[in-house]
Amino acid sequence: MVTAGVIGSTGYAGAQLVSLLVNHPHVSLTYLASHSYVGKRFSSIYPSMEGSCDLVLEEEDLEKASKRCSVLFLALPHGLASKLVTPEILKRCVVIDLGSDYRLSDASVYTQWYKCEHGSANLLKEAVYGLSELKRKEVSQANLIANPGCYTTCSILTLAPLVAENLIDTTSIIIDSASGVTGAGRVEKTDSLFCECNESFKAYGVTNHRHTPEIEQELSALAGEKLIVQFTPHLVPMNRGILSTCYANLKEGVGEEEIRAAYMKWYAQENFIRLMGSTLPETRFVRNTNTTAIGWKVDPRTRRVIAIGAIDNLIKGAGGQAVQNMNIRFGFAENSGLATSVVNPL
Amino acid sequence: MVTAGVIGSTGYAGAQLVSLLVNHPHVSLTYLASHSYVGKRFSSIYPSMEGSCDLVLEEEDLEKASKRCSVLFLALPHGLASKLVTPEILKRCVVIDLGSDYRLSDASVYTQWYKCEHGSANLLKEAVYGLSELKRKEVSQANLIANPGCYTTCSILTLAPLVAENLIDTTSIIIDSASGVTGAGRVEKTDSLFCECNESFKAYGVTNHRHTPEIEQELSALAGEKLIVQFTPHLVPMNRGILSTCYANLKEGVGEEEIRAAYMKWYAQENFIRLMGSTLPETRFVRNTNTTAIGWKVDPRTRRVIAIGAIDNLIKGAGGQAVQNMNIRFGFAENSGLATSVVNPL
Amino acid sequence: MVTAGVIGSTGYAGAQLVSLLVNHPHVSLTYLASHSYVGKRFSSIYPSMEGSCDLVLEEEDLEKASKRCSVLFLALPHGLASKLVTPEILKRCVVIDLGSDYRLSDASVYTQWYKCEHGSANLLKEAVYGLSELKRKEVSQANLIANPGCYTTCSILTLAPLVAENLIDTTSIIIDSASGVTGAGRVEKTDSLFCECNESFKAYGVTNHRHTPEIEQELSALAGEKLIVQFTPHLVPMNRGILSTCYANLKEGVGEEEIRAAYMKWYAQENFIRLMGSTLPETRFVRNTNTTAIGWKVDPRTRRVIAIGAIDNLIKGAGGQAVQNMNIRFGFAENSGLATSVVNPL
Amino acid sequence: MVTAGVIGSTGYAGAQLVSLLVNHPHVSLTYLASHSYVGKRFSSIYPSMEGSCDLVLEEEDLEKASKRCSVLFLALPHGLASKLVTPEILKRCVVIDLGSDYRLSDASVYTQWYKCEHGSANLLKEAVYGLSELKRKEVSQANLIANPGCYTTCSILTLAPLVAENLIDTTSIIIDSASGVTGAGRVEKTDSLFCECNESFKAYGVTNHRHTPEIEQELSALAGEKLIVQFTPHLVPMNRGILSTCYANLKEGVGEEEIRAAYMKWYAQENFIRLMGSTLPETRFVRNTNTTAIGWKVDPRTRRVIAIGAIDNLIKGAGGQAVQNMNIRFGFAENSGLATSVVNPL
Repeated sequence: MVTAGVIGSTGYAGAQLVSLLVNHPHVSLTYLASHSYVGKRFSSIYPSMEGSCDLVLEEEDLEKASKRCSVLFLALPHGLASKLVTPEILKRCVVIDLGSDYRLSDASVYTQWYKCEHGSANLLKEAVYGLSELKRKEVSQANLIANPGCYTTCSILTLAPLVAENLIDTTSIIIDSASGVTGAGRVEKTDSLFCECNESFKAYGVTNHRHTPEIEQELSALAGEKLIVQFTPHLVPMNRGILSTCYANLKEGVGEEEIRAAYMKWYAQENFIRLMGSTLPETRFVRNTNTTAIGWKVDPRTRRVIAIGAIDNLIKGAGGQAVQNMNIRFGFAENSGLATSVVNPL
Repeated sequence: MVTAGVIGSTGYAGAQLVSLLVNHPHVSLTYLASHSYVGKRFSSIYPSMEGSCDLVLEEEDLEKASKRCSVLFLALPHGLASKLVTPEILKRCVVIDLGSDYRLSDASVYTQWYKCEHGSANLLKEAVYGLSELKRKEVSQANLIANPGCYTTCSILTLAPLVAENLIDTTSIIIDSASGVTGAGRVEKTDSLFCECNESFKAYGVTNHRHTPEIEQELSALAGEKLIVQFTPHLVPMNRGILSTCYANLKEGVGEEEIRAAYMKWYAQENFIRLMGSTLPETRFVRNTNTTAIGWKVDPRTRRVIAIGAIDNLIKGAGGQAVQNMNIRFGFAENSGLATSVVNPL
Repeated sequence: MVTAGVIGSTGYAGAQLVSLLVNHPHVSLTYLASHSYVGKRFSSIYPSMEGSCDLVLEEEDLEKASKRCSVLFLALPHGLASKLVTPEILKRCVVIDLGSDYRLSDASVYTQWYKCEHGSANLLKEAVYGLSELKRKEVSQANLIANPGCYTTCSILTLAPLVAENLIDTTSIIIDSASGVTGAGRVEKTDSLFCECNESFKAYGVTNHRHTPEIEQELSALAGEKLIVQFTPHLVPMNRGILSTCYANLKEGVGEEEIRAAYMKWYAQENFIRLMGSTLPETRFVRNTNTTAIGWKVDPRTRRVIAIGAIDNLIKGAGGQAVQNMNIRFGFAENSGLATSVVNPL
Repeated sequence: MVTAGVIGSTGYAGAQLVSLLVNHPHVSLTYLASHSYVGKRFSSIYPSMEGSCDLVLEEEDLEKASKRCSVLFLALPHGLASKLVTPEILKRCVVIDLGSDYRLSDASVYTQWYKCEHGSANLLKEAVYGLSELKRKEVSQANLIANPGCYTTCSILTLAPLVAENLIDTTSIIIDSASGVTGAGRVEKTDSLFCECNESFKAYGVTNHRHTPEIEQELSALAGEKLIVQFTPHLVPMNRGILSTCYANLKEGVGEEEIRAAYMKWYAQENFIRLMGSTLPETRFVRNTNTTAIGWKVDPRTRRVIAIGAIDNLIKGAGGQAVQNMNIRFGFAENSGLATSVVNPL
């Protein structure tokens, strides 16, 4: 039994994580912290959790928390975690950061995209990028795990086999993604109001979304050379889900067969990846699960592959993958607390 | 040509009003004020209005505005308008208040429901309750017009003929209403976030919603006796629309025929009321219009009438009725700037 | 381990049931039948279930199925089940009917509301109305269990303590309900198209909805006298959820205290009922769970109680209660396969 | 005053067109035909149109209709119009076809993408592709106008200046689009049910959507060489709107300045095109209008332009452009019956 805590537990990612942890067979959830709701019961903020999680929300005190918990999850706005984590804390407990502070291994890239200095650049070399399927070994030994972004998880998993197996022109990668509104967090801002999102569709963060360097860092590592990608997110009037439609020019001689073989080689054994071939994924097919669904089409007219991935942004894109990483790190079955079977088809 | 201004123009009701006024054949819109966006162009807040309304937003200064405009519309949170309107202003220009400050003729009722003192109780006797179809004469002579609430408009119009013609037991009236989320205004609060409203349905303000005393005031006047009603609003995950499902016990001897006759007598000649009989209204049937659609069923088993009204809460429930009242007050055709024909069936 | 089958497995209620059964610790799901998709894998219709349920859909043959299964669930349009069930089948296996054929104990009431003859009126005396919380003993011994309707479950559970404890005037009951669109089933009809439901709200079945006699039958039994209710359903643009806003006049001397005491007496020990007091339920609080959430307000002005219940129409209103009934019937823990904890707060 | 008729008037595109025509100052709408609702009033199918359009729906008889009308609009499934239109009909009246039959000038391309023979290939040379802004002269003289597809209109208008001014590598064009569900028509199919679309996002028609050859035909003409494009549509859970996110590699020496200049040169004078520069369009900005909104970003890292266009698929993408074409053909002001000002900002 592992004692666990969550800092930033009342945001959407944090709350999703909490709901997974309270059902986890090897976890004892003992500490929940919140910036805005100290002293209230968690279930007074999320009434659906009444009876499941009635812990009282505490101050965000990483130092203290690290003495009470074996694993601490951070779900904070960027720039905060890196000011709180210290080498001492990492000696006492495993930190899994759902935020962006430890995802980029190069602090200057962080500064370039986030427009602020990194608070603990010295810890970056200890941090492991926790894309579970691609980093099992590293995650299993890390005390500081940087949980990947939601768009990032979906996009990297969809493109990894194509890049790693050298099937596509890496200068041609375009990732056109769309997310449900939970991706914007539980933040009181006009843009996230019901009537501003409902019945509309838009692109945002065009050319400068902060998930771009994450995708480039990881795909570059797989390619064995530095590559850059075009990444464009969109906002969909729905609660959950991310779909990434990825375009790339095929290398000469590459066709449907090679693409399929690459996906099979990389993912056929994966518990949380569902290869759908030419039956393309829809976000509802993975809603409320930790599964990544991937389909693809080769276009003989244009000599491109269009590979499409779908995840639940709050689960595989946040809380679910965080649990998956904890499972790997602590030696639990990787799917503990993460049913692959959807509870509800709708 | 009437010069018009709107104070509180960037909220949802205000913006709807603006979009109607810029298309109005007899109005020159010359003054728009906003609490939060002074100095910005209106169309920078509502890009759909670019080219239609590019006025720069000014400070909210009712005094000054009243010297520039013949009619001023106020769309402010409750408690503000009553602090701003003065007898001098009313001498210079017509004020149409979309807020609640001048709707209740008894200041003590206001205090009881709004939990605050009225800012200009002396003006209440000059104010006319602007439910256009029922108060044409009064509106045509008023300098201070209290535009009714959205739920109120829908509920009163649906029940008025039944109450006035003495067809129902006035102790038995239950009004079960539901509104789209624009009814909550363009306010940054957690409850109005997309993910808090979407895919859910709830009641709110049960037993104490502030539209209750308005409904009671007007229906009592029609009944010729003081009555009270049960009013329960609900929130629907959609942008626009109000549906009021009204229940009442039939008086002895009253049946389908009397009900129909009452509606015909009261509304057959009304431009903005569509009687649908037993074909019940849906909110989409009146979306983007100033129309009130009303249908009804008599239940022989329970001896009740169920009368259902539908409006667009931002038009007939706010900006549209405000324009209708202006039309009446200034002697324009009542439907000027208020097409009865829906632009789009979906 | 119980062998189970579902007939009508690809409708929304059936599919929800399947997703619960495949995760049930004591069930082996061995037979799925479908009217439209014979020969296809269940997961080809519901791709989210790939890997969880890949059974091939078979012909709807109750006779054969009853020889292979210990429990058979029927999720069929009304009028079909009653033509298929026979005394012989009921000797071989337990039948839990999610449809309406065996809910009304009086065949003439069935004919009156459903406008057709009952196909096996002789079996009605064997059928038990499976509202789990109210009928545990009967359910535990029945071979033919009539799973209640969705509106019915929500409305009866909300009103039962008030009626049974004699706190309200039973001639004054008005039930104003609203449901998500899964309630209309997976049927290709214009009314259920996205663009016909989205951004609108309507009442339907006013005065004649078929769940009315069910509610009256069960509440009458609790009241010890025949009562009738006013029931009005509405359609909400969301997938799941039912909210019932119930109105009744308080009997003399009854107030907040008596109401609360009644709810506590009846439900304080119930696993699947959450009493929220004056914190009113929203449908999202129970989404994806088998829980019924109930809140209430006493209105001293009108001397009425407004009691509000919320369920997930596909779970407590269909598949979940069916599993709960199976658990009771076969002596499993009542919550087997029915986590009370929500997997996801959103 | 022009007499007009609509065949296929009860589908979503047809109904939108009807609602525009009844408000058109120079049109007398005299004939409405429907496949499914002959004998019913139009407003019984679309109750929001009661009082605005109560015409009785007639049989679909193009021959007869052409004797009663000066302009006939066809809104039919593909393959039907080409079997009905004859040279004789075109002598008597102007035909504006909202379907796809006359959009492709090469019948073999039609056969390749639509998998059926063209019904009147001899008329293709008379047909004009009615993308109003690009084909005014041709439209003004045509008797057979092929109204463009919805995705097509949005995509071509967004890319035309870039292609025509030789600013982008025409082998690199990727068009990633998304549409509201009205795009699927008012057709009873499972895929269009509320619960199958709501809360999900998917791609469809990947590599083979039938709007592809239209886009290629028109952009090729502008480029002066045959080009092919990658086009991927997606489905958004909303009623109306199309957004096209278009990617292309910039030619050497081309930057932000040249892109802007091209858009200004082509569209600065256009009534129905709103250039938004780096303020990117959202579909709600053009909802219920005939406007195309276009924004763009140049990405210096990738040397690509991302140009984004937004339209209302039922107006500029169907009925509105059909009216615009009629206006051009009959010499009316181009914006007759097509207010540029949105009626409602939400």
